[in-house]
Amino acid sequence: MGGGHGLFASLQALRRVTSEVTAVVTVADDGGSSGRLRREFAILPPGDLRMAMAALCGDDREGRLWADVLQSRFGGDGPLAGHAIGNLLLAGVWEQLSDPIEGLDMVGKLLDVQGRVLPMSTVPLDIEADVIGLDPDAPDEIRLLRGQATIAKTPGEVRAVRLIPRTPPASAEALAAITAADWVVIGPGSWFTSVLPHLLVPDLAEALVSTQGKRCLTMNLDDSYETEGYTASEHLEVLADHAPGLRIDAVIVDPTFLRGDQHFATFAASLGARVVAADVRSSDGSARHDPNRLASVYADVMGLVG
Amino acid sequence: MGGGHGLFASLQALRRVTSEVTAVVTVADDGGSSGRLRREFAILPPGDLRMAMAALCGDDREGRLWADVLQSRFGGDGPLAGHAIGNLLLAGVWEQLSDPIEGLDMVGKLLDVQGRVLPMSTVPLDIEADVIGLDPDAPDEIRLLRGQATIAKTPGEVRAVRLIPRTPPASAEALAAITAADWVVIGPGSWFTSVLPHLLVPDLAEALVSTQGKRCLTMNLDDSYETEGYTASEHLEVLADHAPGLRIDAVIVDPTFLRGDQHFATFAASLGARVVAADVRSSDGSARHDPNRLASVYADVMGLVG
Repeated sequence: MGGGHGLFASLQALRRVTSEVTAVVTVADDGGSSGRLRREFAILPPGDLRMAMAALCGDDREGRLWADVLQSRFGGDGPLAGHAIGNLLLAGVWEQLSDPIEGLDMVGKLLDVQGRVLPMSTVPLDIEADVIGLDPDAPDEIRLLRGQATIAKTPGEVRAVRLIPRTPPASAEALAAITAADWVVIGPGSWFTSVLPHLLVPDLAEALVSTQGKRCLTMNLDDSYETEGYTASEHLEVLADHAPGLRIDAVIVDPTFLRGDQHFATFAASLGARVVAADVRSSDGSARHDPNRLASVYADVMGLVG
Repeated sequence: MGGGHGLFASLQALRRVTSEVTAVVTVADDGGSSGRLRREFAILPPGDLRMAMAALCGDDREGRLWADVLQSRFGGDGPLAGHAIGNLLLAGVWEQLSDPIEGLDMVGKLLDVQGRVLPMSTVPLDIEADVIGLDPDAPDEIRLLRGQATIAKTPGEVRAVRLIPRTPPASAEALAAITAADWVVIGPGSWFTSVLPHLLVPDLAEALVSTQGKRCLTMNLDDSYETEGYTASEHLEVLADHAPGLRIDAVIVDPTFLRGDQHFATFAASLGARVVAADVRSSDGSARHDPNRLASVYADVMGLVG
């Protein structure tokens, strides 16, 4: 469960240890190519779904080439500039088929995607956030921001997020996948705009709380972007605030993020989770998870052969 | 060899009698979705190539569904309105791969296209035409029109067409296909803008003249659109004018088009061709070839089992 680059990395890791993976993807993006498409056609924003598909494309030459094509964007400064090819393909298929999941399955089959990609809700969503620190004269004043793209870029401090509409319908297929899962993985990703939104879809949150499967939370590598200044413990705290009753079995965290954070193990234990501190950072200097390292940790945590 | 709806019908018929079919497609369209894309990205106009692919998609449910998706167009009145999905997919793949034929082969493989779709030239082309009858005060004055979309819609009478640039490079794969072919089929289609352009690519015309394969000309059903007022014989005459030295082995023509046309058999014989007069018109009232009837005639003409 997630969205964006965090979900991409997690899926790349998971498909190394299992062929039975279902991505449950946020559908609240309103920026860039996805934002333009949802405004033009009133469809689900395709971007996070397309990224998840690209992550699950095969490892052979053809699979990698199609992943590249899906992810690539038109250049120039014309009407198509900036649109990802995969976004247009999904939007086009959705113009033909009324059921977005049928369209996703059709593209997934075409591209020989390993596993399945599902939207967390069957309707496009918006996010609103309570943000402080935007007014230097009143640093504690809460401002209401709306739109994933706006929230993700705010220089203020996000304190809480909500979905619009408040109680969106979950995808039935996503609920079934969570109920049937051996493991549900939450994160990594933009904490407020890609990870927490799933917990705000009522039926999805309920399925997550009640599933017999185990739950793994994969932490971000640091406090960059939306959670600047948050400790790892504060990441857990804000997640718990948004998901009453949620229990976690394992928390995967890079040890560099725990420096000076005295309370993480205690907080994790209060959610039922054991802490798996492991080096999962990419060695290329980027703030990304390394798919092979993360795969190895997933295999250990889930008792699978990596 | 052809373009547009005529090539679509011919390919639908040919794939019923052989799996070894190569479409050699005009790349001079400058109207609609194709025109917008070639102006935005300086690529081959994808529309006729996309239609050819759709015609060669499989007959199973999945094949037909993908053919529908390729052919379908975005609705509304936004920046994407009117673009065919398949055009965007081709344009997107071409943004990733410098060789347009590699991109066509890649999409063809993805969609399980039967046979191969090739552009007649590796560069986008334009058409210019000599047209009379545009000025009521000077009905015989020749006006120069430029652009396939403009020429195809002119109320005047087209007398000749030329390509811009004058001597475009042929696609090497198309030359090889013509040289290796048992049969080369020319037409049906918009006579001046989809059928004759192939004969104006010098290397393509030479390959067509010198191939050891036989040549079949499939006539249009009537004189609609660009050749309004032309008899069937005059269709042959203008074709011969544009392709010095070309010999034809068989001409397929619907008998309704021969009414009152005394010279057709003589003219066909002067090109070396026997006339195959056969009911190939769709029974749905449209001015389209019926794929099954045309397939049956192709099978007879080529000595294949339909």
